[in-house]
Amino acid sequence: MAKIEFEIMEHIGILSKNEAGWQKELNLVSWNKRQPKFDLRDWSEDHTKMGKGVTLTNEELAQLKDILANM
Amino acid sequence: MAKIEFEIMEHIGILSKNEAGWQKELNLVSWNKRQPKFDLRDWSEDHTKMGKGVTLTNEELAQLKDILANM
Repeated sequence: MAKIEFEIMEHIGILSKNEAGWQKELNLVSWNKRQPKFDLRDWSEDHTKMGKGVTLTNEELAQLKDILANM
Repeated sequence: MAKIEFEIMEHIGILSKNEAGWQKELNLVSWNKRQPKFDLRDWSEDHTKMGKGVTLTNEELAQLKDILANM
C-alpha cells in the first residue's frame, strides 16, 4: 500500500475508547498535505495506527449535525 | 473476501450525493444478522455497493451529537 501522509490538525472530540486503548475520534485531518477535512475514525492511543473511517466535508458535517439534532 | 450479509433497517439521513449517484448516508444497519448499529458510509444509488465507513453504537452516536452541537 502506498504510504499515506497525514497530519491531525485539530482533535475535536472523542466518541469512545475501547479496552485496547483505541479511540473513536472526530478530528480535522490533512491527508497528503491537502486541505484538512473532518474525519471520523478509530485511532490507537498514540495516533500512530488508524482504523477505517470516513472523511466529511464542511457541508456533510453540517448536514450530519442537522440529522442528529432532529433524531 | 468473505461475503458480508447486511440489511439496512432504517434510512436515517443523507449527508451528500456525488455526480456518480453515490450517497453518504447515516443508516441503521444489521451486519451478519447481528443487532443493528448506526452506520455512516457511502452507498451506490441502488444500495448494492458500499464504500468504507464507520459503525457507531448508541453511545457513540449520542456523543457525536453532543460534540457537533457544541462546535
